[in-house]
Amino acid sequence: MIMRMSSLFVRTLREDPADAEVPSHRLLVRAGYIRRAAPGIYTWLPLGLRVLRNVERIIREEMDAIGAQELQFPALLPREPYEATGRWTEYGDGIFRLKDRKDGDYLLGPTHEEMFTLVVKDLFSSYKDLPVWLYQIQTKYRDEARPRAGLLRGREFIMKDSYSFDTTDEGLDASYAAHRQAYVKTFDRLGFDYVIVKATSGAMGGSKSEEFLAKADVGEDTYVRCTSCDYAANVEAVQVRPPAPVPYDDAPAAHAEDTPDTPTIESLVALLNEKYPRDDRPWAAGDTLKNVLVLLKHPDGTREPLAIGLPGDREVDQKRLEGQLEPIEVEPMDDAELRKHPTLVKGYIGPGALGEKSDSGIRYLVDPRVAEGTRWVTGADVAGSHVLDLVAGRDFTPDGTIEAAEVRDGDPCPNCDSGTLESARGIEMGHIFQLGRKYADALDLQVLDENGKLVTVTMGSYGIGVSRAVAAIAEGNNDELGLVWPREISPADVHIVATGKDTAVYDAAAELADELSRRGITVLYDDREKVSPGVKFKDAELIGVPTILTVGRGLVDGKVEVKDRRSGERTEVPFLQAANHVVHLAHGS
Amino acid sequence: MIMRMSSLFVRTLREDPADAEVPSHRLLVRAGYIRRAAPGIYTWLPLGLRVLRNVERIIREEMDAIGAQELQFPALLPREPYEATGRWTEYGDGIFRLKDRKDGDYLLGPTHEEMFTLVVKDLFSSYKDLPVWLYQIQTKYRDEARPRAGLLRGREFIMKDSYSFDTTDEGLDASYAAHRQAYVKTFDRLGFDYVIVKATSGAMGGSKSEEFLAKADVGEDTYVRCTSCDYAANVEAVQVRPPAPVPYDDAPAAHAEDTPDTPTIESLVALLNEKYPRDDRPWAAGDTLKNVLVLLKHPDGTREPLAIGLPGDREVDQKRLEGQLEPIEVEPMDDAELRKHPTLVKGYIGPGALGEKSDSGIRYLVDPRVAEGTRWVTGADVAGSHVLDLVAGRDFTPDGTIEAAEVRDGDPCPNCDSGTLESARGIEMGHIFQLGRKYADALDLQVLDENGKLVTVTMGSYGIGVSRAVAAIAEGNNDELGLVWPREISPADVHIVATGKDTAVYDAAAELADELSRRGITVLYDDREKVSPGVKFKDAELIGVPTILTVGRGLVDGKVEVKDRRSGERTEVPFLQAANHVVHLAHGS
Repeated sequence: MIMRMSSLFVRTLREDPADAEVPSHRLLVRAGYIRRAAPGIYTWLPLGLRVLRNVERIIREEMDAIGAQELQFPALLPREPYEATGRWTEYGDGIFRLKDRKDGDYLLGPTHEEMFTLVVKDLFSSYKDLPVWLYQIQTKYRDEARPRAGLLRGREFIMKDSYSFDTTDEGLDASYAAHRQAYVKTFDRLGFDYVIVKATSGAMGGSKSEEFLAKADVGEDTYVRCTSCDYAANVEAVQVRPPAPVPYDDAPAAHAEDTPDTPTIESLVALLNEKYPRDDRPWAAGDTLKNVLVLLKHPDGTREPLAIGLPGDREVDQKRLEGQLEPIEVEPMDDAELRKHPTLVKGYIGPGALGEKSDSGIRYLVDPRVAEGTRWVTGADVAGSHVLDLVAGRDFTPDGTIEAAEVRDGDPCPNCDSGTLESARGIEMGHIFQLGRKYADALDLQVLDENGKLVTVTMGSYGIGVSRAVAAIAEGNNDELGLVWPREISPADVHIVATGKDTAVYDAAAELADELSRRGITVLYDDREKVSPGVKFKDAELIGVPTILTVGRGLVDGKVEVKDRRSGERTEVPFLQAANHVVHLAHGS
Repeated sequence: MIMRMSSLFVRTLREDPADAEVPSHRLLVRAGYIRRAAPGIYTWLPLGLRVLRNVERIIREEMDAIGAQELQFPALLPREPYEATGRWTEYGDGIFRLKDRKDGDYLLGPTHEEMFTLVVKDLFSSYKDLPVWLYQIQTKYRDEARPRAGLLRGREFIMKDSYSFDTTDEGLDASYAAHRQAYVKTFDRLGFDYVIVKATSGAMGGSKSEEFLAKADVGEDTYVRCTSCDYAANVEAVQVRPPAPVPYDDAPAAHAEDTPDTPTIESLVALLNEKYPRDDRPWAAGDTLKNVLVLLKHPDGTREPLAIGLPGDREVDQKRLEGQLEPIEVEPMDDAELRKHPTLVKGYIGPGALGEKSDSGIRYLVDPRVAEGTRWVTGADVAGSHVLDLVAGRDFTPDGTIEAAEVRDGDPCPNCDSGTLESARGIEMGHIFQLGRKYADALDLQVLDENGKLVTVTMGSYGIGVSRAVAAIAEGNNDELGLVWPREISPADVHIVATGKDTAVYDAAAELADELSRRGITVLYDDREKVSPGVKFKDAELIGVPTILTVGRGLVDGKVEVKDRRSGERTEVPFLQAANHVVHLAHGS
């Protein structure tokens, strides 16, 4: 197949589009791969569509290879199944809703859990039919508040979504493992640098959940990785390794001290260092136990107070907290609410006034660092007074632990003994997780087991952002001149540039293009006779086909030049060997 | 590739689905190709998706072969371009409209003329860039009042739509011819019996417009064809061949006669035969000239009366009339409106009171059969009186002709001298027409011509119903046992059925399936050991793969049976030659 620049539906731009914030967006627009149709909604021009199809093909091949079966759901979906699972309302403003001429409610599918669940319920009824792995590559819709970065966060986008259906937890583990392996192969082939991070799965907590992130500074996702081992996790999913219990036999008894005018950690630490200095080292914020009160808002609308105890040098990370509690939402507790609990003294709240067994009855969860035997300075529940040498496990017992404290660069790795955590940014490209029985329960997907008993099916969920992958690949494969596509993704195998005005050059280049096309090579051929070599080369660098072959002045000596787009390396090749050379490059690597 | 019935995501049904009206719908659901998700909205199960992809591939290959370039627009589109062309309102209830979270207006694209026009305007600016032919294969949406017949009239469906862009009418003719030829090849390959009918193109009348209809009794489109030549046309597009002028030198002068109480054609004919009998033959309805008054409703809301004169034995065909006048709509004229024209006498309206130059000033168009020299009995514009021997061209001159009279079986063919017309039904599969400059004008698509002058681009429009084609192919390829796919369309090349309980049979069948798969054959393998041969054969006939290969009892003699699904012909083939045999069938035909 040959695409000729003289007739190809493309126009390259020398200027960056005004609305483009990230390199992939700038370059995909400038090189003529995509055009914006509306905010977060894009048209795929011929070159872009070829790249998209290559990405789809790779994903499809790897899904087929593990025995997943492709089907396709509509994008326009009736309200009823989404009502049954509660998502019609849960999605809030995040989905597009519409009515048909009979006033029926519809939505544009943001994800298709309900449809997958229902189609399995429709077709299958026995454990013998399972496991079954189904997937689709399909256009999805989300009414993002802030569509941005071109294809990275769109409102109409393409996803591959798969679901596995098993009768047992062991079956789900095996289905999950197979998909994980397929994802590794897929992302290896897609040609970007990625990391697999542990993720939370919200209310389904406890089951496996991992994200595949493309490493990219422009990514919206923050994760942390260990400087030493291969640990990587979403910030929400980091689990602090609890310190071993500290012996506290020699600890002095807890003692309350006057600490007037110390409503903040900073003022408390200053006063401690002034009035109660320690011998070994000065007091620091990390020696204090800060107790933060919040209100939990349950999905049914009821509210419940919660106290979180954590070292005074750390803030509560709202995302981490909500990640633990989802779908419960978290609100700050205001003074009016606080006054409903007369034993709580603002600025001086201590463990003594907290806990389900305390007078307040407020559940009290602490950071894992507040381990047995650790000593703290904390509020004495009396204005202007703090307790020192308060020992966890001796002087107070919280109702449990919670991962709500911020994660910081330099924190020890939860997985190894030598490393520390550092944060990095990535683009979420894939997410695999054990969904469990949530949708099967809501939509009554049961099958008969070996004993003729109905059992509820357990599901795994596996997604890849397909159009986002195009952007992520572009993000990870470009230089100051333009795009640099990996071979399997490139819209063409070779970009032939004919230069000058000599018709013999154009004849030779056309002949070469024909031969390559006959041999199964996709050729982008710049046959524009009235365009200067400089413009042609600029276009070739911008478009980013991995091999650029120039037919020009050297032809009189029987030579053409082959340039590797990525390394910039140039090789002179005899014209008569050029076809073999290109075929070897296209298939050999 | 091998699909095993034991794990394939399919369930065949013995009963017809309750909502299925037509064979294709019944069979596609029963054989497990599609499932209904909502009215007019379907899910493609694995077998169905394979068929859909085959249809898409054929269309894509033929579009690529003529040099059309594929791109892809979004389905979710902003209101503005559709507002600019007036279609946002023109579509009425026929499209899905929705709002985003910022209260912006969007629609789900029913067709993409605006987007194609705008993208060419965005990228191209010179006659040197043209012609360009662009296409997409894409999901479209229409809020049909009565979605029906499964995939035949859906609300979410897949179309291939192309547009050609030229600077000259000659260029458009060439683009049209190329697409017509590509469509002929495409529909030949898709494997159904089709007819190319002349069609109207509404307000763009005069330019070329043809529809590709699959011949099918269940089709919604009525067309007429000649019993003798190859003429075929949409009923709307039939153009009556005007009779040669009739000499009227010997015609008596027109004379008014009393015809009391004859407000209908029937009563008039009865009276004529009683009071004014003719020698040669009795009066018939066809001897009378009926004048029908309607109101034209222009897009700007203004109304204008129109009189249509046609032989009394024919009714006005509203669709044919509107086909001539589109986008003008037609309403009947009520008595109140009629009374505004005092020279018109209800039941006795004649040409004397009609025409732009008459007192009424009402435009008067006649059927082409009302040719010069033809004699008529018609109203005398006086209650209870008709004129006889009124000669067209002598006694009255209409303002023009119009194709508004019903077309009837037995009407003479407009194209040949011997044939007559007969009506038939078909499914509209493709429509090609010369769109002209309507959208380019509305959206200001101009390019510089050879002389550096801006010229407006002229467009051709070429559509194929892709998901509808799946249904149309099924409609034309089935028998009482199930589907009978053409080879290029079938979800598999061969359906291997292993029967009995002998493991040697299943081993041999699996071995054969493996070999065929290695040789590039797509195999559907019924490996279900606990299912009876009867059920397996029923499933195979229903699913409709063209070659059914049975491995069973004959294996002990080294034989398998190959059945041609379409002819029912069975052949015994040595097991060792079975693979070659199947490869030959798959590639040889």
